[in-house]
Amino acid sequence: MNLIDTIRVVEDYPKAGISFKDITTLLHDPKAFRAGIDALVELAVNYDFDYILAAEARGFVLGTPIAYVLNKGFIPVRKPGKLPAEVYHYEYDLEYGTDALEIHRDSLKEGDRVLIVDDLLATGGTSSAMIKMAEKLGATVVACLYLIELGFLPGRDVLDGYEVKSVVYYED
Amino acid sequence: MNLIDTIRVVEDYPKAGISFKDITTLLHDPKAFRAGIDALVELAVNYDFDYILAAEARGFVLGTPIAYVLNKGFIPVRKPGKLPAEVYHYEYDLEYGTDALEIHRDSLKEGDRVLIVDDLLATGGTSSAMIKMAEKLGATVVACLYLIELGFLPGRDVLDGYEVKSVVYYED
Repeated sequence: MNLIDTIRVVEDYPKAGISFKDITTLLHDPKAFRAGIDALVELAVNYDFDYILAAEARGFVLGTPIAYVLNKGFIPVRKPGKLPAEVYHYEYDLEYGTDALEIHRDSLKEGDRVLIVDDLLATGGTSSAMIKMAEKLGATVVACLYLIELGFLPGRDVLDGYEVKSVVYYED
Repeated sequence: MNLIDTIRVVEDYPKAGISFKDITTLLHDPKAFRAGIDALVELAVNYDFDYILAAEARGFVLGTPIAYVLNKGFIPVRKPGKLPAEVYHYEYDLEYGTDALEIHRDSLKEGDRVLIVDDLLATGGTSSAMIKMAEKLGATVVACLYLIELGFLPGRDVLDGYEVKSVVYYED
């Protein structure tokens, strides 16, 4: 199965000029969904880690099946105001303006090893934020895994020094 | 393992008087996470269905591992503006004001059978909306499964006529 054939490309979403990679068509197809998770699991087993870290909402879709298969814990990173206990709040710059993410402070401690999972590596902004949040709490990031990598954007360079692996690669 | 012991109760969140059931502590514990998914899978295997339907973001966390284990497709229900292709937009009343959810129009067709999964059954508002959306697109809802049921709220009555099952039950 060629997973790229199960990903729908929506032109000019969310704005003009963007070719959005829509994974809902992959998730919809039981064989493609299973193949996508299995491919990510095959990458994940190369690392020694305790927790999967993923950001809402698409990161949750891929992160939890991997955590389940590999018997790991799952730690959600969420938009501000969504986590009920004490959080570490992290703000980061976007092209225009800023964004913010939160993680429960008691979800990671010194010496914990985490694997970051997301649907898409584009500019690397969300992953950089997650790395900084995990490290701030004392954890080590063993690798960042993506279902899709946009090779024409600087994500991989932004994450220089970290292990970065992806399943489906778009050159342009 | 008693799953209820792995759920953190946060008082007065998101507002005074609410005892919020925080499942992040369950997700964090690999054994509890696996036991929770396995308990939901054990309920799900009693139904004949094609797709798991779940709403962002906590529904995604539980819905996708079940879809993976049972080789089913996964259909996300999202907040307005998050799905890139043509959507069916559904507005529904809350205690104060209204809320809205969207589903891709081409994700369900006449005769499809869906299982709804969510973390929590409280007032039943989100599930009622998802049922109406699935049925509008021609699908049959075979059951609604929850990790947690708040027995002191009217969710089960609101979903009268549908199969409703839960793993962890709070009487008060």
